[in-house]
Amino acid sequence: MISVTQAREILFSNPLSLPEEFIPFQKSLNHTLASDVYADRDAPPFHRVTMDGIAIQSAGLQTKKQFEIEGIQAAGQEQMTLKNSENCLEVMTGAVLPKNTDCVVPYEMVQINRGMAVVNELEFEKFKNVHLQGTDAKKGDLILRKDSWIHPGILSVLASLGQEKVKVVRPPKVLICATGDELVGVDQHPLPHQIRTSNVYMLAAALQNLGIAAQTAHLPDHKEALRSAIEKALESHAILLFSGAVSKGKFDFLPEVLNELGLEILIHGVTQKPGKPFLFGRKNENFVFGFPGNPSSSLVCFHNYFKPWLSKQLRRQEPQASGILAEEVIFKKPVTYHLLVRTEIQEGNIMAYPIKNSGSGDWVHLSEADAFLSLPADKETFKKNDVFPLNYFHKGGF
Amino acid sequence: MISVTQAREILFSNPLSLPEEFIPFQKSLNHTLASDVYADRDAPPFHRVTMDGIAIQSAGLQTKKQFEIEGIQAAGQEQMTLKNSENCLEVMTGAVLPKNTDCVVPYEMVQINRGMAVVNELEFEKFKNVHLQGTDAKKGDLILRKDSWIHPGILSVLASLGQEKVKVVRPPKVLICATGDELVGVDQHPLPHQIRTSNVYMLAAALQNLGIAAQTAHLPDHKEALRSAIEKALESHAILLFSGAVSKGKFDFLPEVLNELGLEILIHGVTQKPGKPFLFGRKNENFVFGFPGNPSSSLVCFHNYFKPWLSKQLRRQEPQASGILAEEVIFKKPVTYHLLVRTEIQEGNIMAYPIKNSGSGDWVHLSEADAFLSLPADKETFKKNDVFPLNYFHKGGF
Repeated sequence: MISVTQAREILFSNPLSLPEEFIPFQKSLNHTLASDVYADRDAPPFHRVTMDGIAIQSAGLQTKKQFEIEGIQAAGQEQMTLKNSENCLEVMTGAVLPKNTDCVVPYEMVQINRGMAVVNELEFEKFKNVHLQGTDAKKGDLILRKDSWIHPGILSVLASLGQEKVKVVRPPKVLICATGDELVGVDQHPLPHQIRTSNVYMLAAALQNLGIAAQTAHLPDHKEALRSAIEKALESHAILLFSGAVSKGKFDFLPEVLNELGLEILIHGVTQKPGKPFLFGRKNENFVFGFPGNPSSSLVCFHNYFKPWLSKQLRRQEPQASGILAEEVIFKKPVTYHLLVRTEIQEGNIMAYPIKNSGSGDWVHLSEADAFLSLPADKETFKKNDVFPLNYFHKGGF
Repeated sequence: MISVTQAREILFSNPLSLPEEFIPFQKSLNHTLASDVYADRDAPPFHRVTMDGIAIQSAGLQTKKQFEIEGIQAAGQEQMTLKNSENCLEVMTGAVLPKNTDCVVPYEMVQINRGMAVVNELEFEKFKNVHLQGTDAKKGDLILRKDSWIHPGILSVLASLGQEKVKVVRPPKVLICATGDELVGVDQHPLPHQIRTSNVYMLAAALQNLGIAAQTAHLPDHKEALRSAIEKALESHAILLFSGAVSKGKFDFLPEVLNELGLEILIHGVTQKPGKPFLFGRKNENFVFGFPGNPSSSLVCFHNYFKPWLSKQLRRQEPQASGILAEEVIFKKPVTYHLLVRTEIQEGNIMAYPIKNSGSGDWVHLSEADAFLSLPADKETFKKNDVFPLNYFHKGGF
């Protein structure tokens, strides 16, 4: 058995190379940008009016307060010219600053009467209420770096830069496999010794939250059938996630079958709770993650191993979060303890409250947790207000 | 003009009643559950084996260490019975504990040889490694409350409880409208005085992250055309979001047109920066949100007003986050200042670093922000390490 740290090291030294593809920018949300993007013109592209009002020559204000209105410069109109520098032009937010003017006095400071604008200020800075051409970026500047994660703000930048098609990293195909003859469909009435399939839906939902539409399958607990099902699945899916069949049970055929199929088992067993039998195997560009079948074990392994690994393959920077333990916890086994918690932000601090539960098979209380803290193996007492690495299962209502 | 607090009070006192509907549980992620859900049987439904090993009578260990193996109780098999209480049955994780046994000794503590299991322990607690029937819930217990937000853990509970169809709150139909004659399509080469449409894509992406597929439209800056477009849109969409046309410009027809269409303008102008001209109007079950057209103004108003309002209509509990200002900020206007920040979690603290930018029209630097802090109107100096309300634009890579 290896430690959590060792397991993560092995994992991260096994990369999957993902292809790149062009997709319409509207569909690029939550993808990874696969190319640098440069400004196709200055930003703003012209001296841009930022308030509705009148454009004048600022120097004129020192000697006069009345300006005859020559016309209106609307947004989306070609740049106009103030003919007489003693006069003004009305200007709208987003319009080009007219030629022969250098500042905008907002309507709030102006009275307009019979074609004359009267200003109640004696002085007005040059370029006041003007967003000067090229302030934010110059044509040719690097605006978005390769490997950026496309969130709404970046998607909007892609639109502004005219990137109708965007080069992104293509997410891998993932198949989530349930095993276990005790499982029946959600639409079934289970017999007394059966339970309904649920982990695969939980993992599929977790992947959906990452923007990945995974497929699900239920594989049999019979060795031959399992082998042929896996062999076939590996042809069409780069990644298989298993819930169950990785432990020491008589029908936990997964490690054996993977071996027979030529996969190298790189991790099997980690000094942690829950999730001790966690398995990771590889053959060329195929990767198999085996999570123990208990709900907490599956979800914790997904978030502690699969998600950061996938994130790295998708070239995303995923900073490690941390949380503050809100109550003392004692845990005496010399293994990393992934403690289920409910988090609350208090005065800018992420407080983590332990969730009472009866162990990794307790799906009722698992659903109350929104994260887990990873308490290190070399301690037994974890004090209130101590800080530990935090992994979120999800990030709150919205 | 009213304060941010007043604006939010007005907003929250204008509810939209959303219908409920049944959808397949697999599609229910990120919806709001619209009914209480009860346990259809005990959880676990039987005394459930939690380790692979042998099931015995615990009392026997005090006098003997060798147990003849009668057979194997697999997961998914009907409950077996240990015939001779001096013997044992091999049992697999997830199986029913056999009749006439009361604990499970894991394989790690057992040597098996020629049909005999030898245990290296003198004592073993009753029900050790057994997840007792009904520990987590009893048949008939309330498991999920109405108005819960369906995250992966809850979706999995719905599966476990056999909720093939789930009653959820149906999200409203939203149309996001761009206005502004300066805007051209993303696929166009703008003339010098034009810019490409981007805000509507940003807002649509923000809604997509909330699980809502909104439509987008570009409405003209001409009063009659705008009125008929809005009139039509209100027939098919409960909610219209506008970017632009709400300020004091000559072509900002939105307030006037909404009035003519019989909408009551409940908010127009809030003492905040950015987003001063924010507008909110209503007519029966139709709601219009007008965001100023600058990118930061639109995004801040979306997150400060629309999102919490929508969240409430969807019956979601959205706790207010807070962040710690990482650098002193001085802001002298007596209005709420929504400061763009980049957040980082350090030792369980959410640190917020101000993003340098040239104002609300600067979409280049907006994309570096992942949140904003709302600094109150009654102060001018905001000290390093002071705590303020925080709104996330998005929540990190994954």
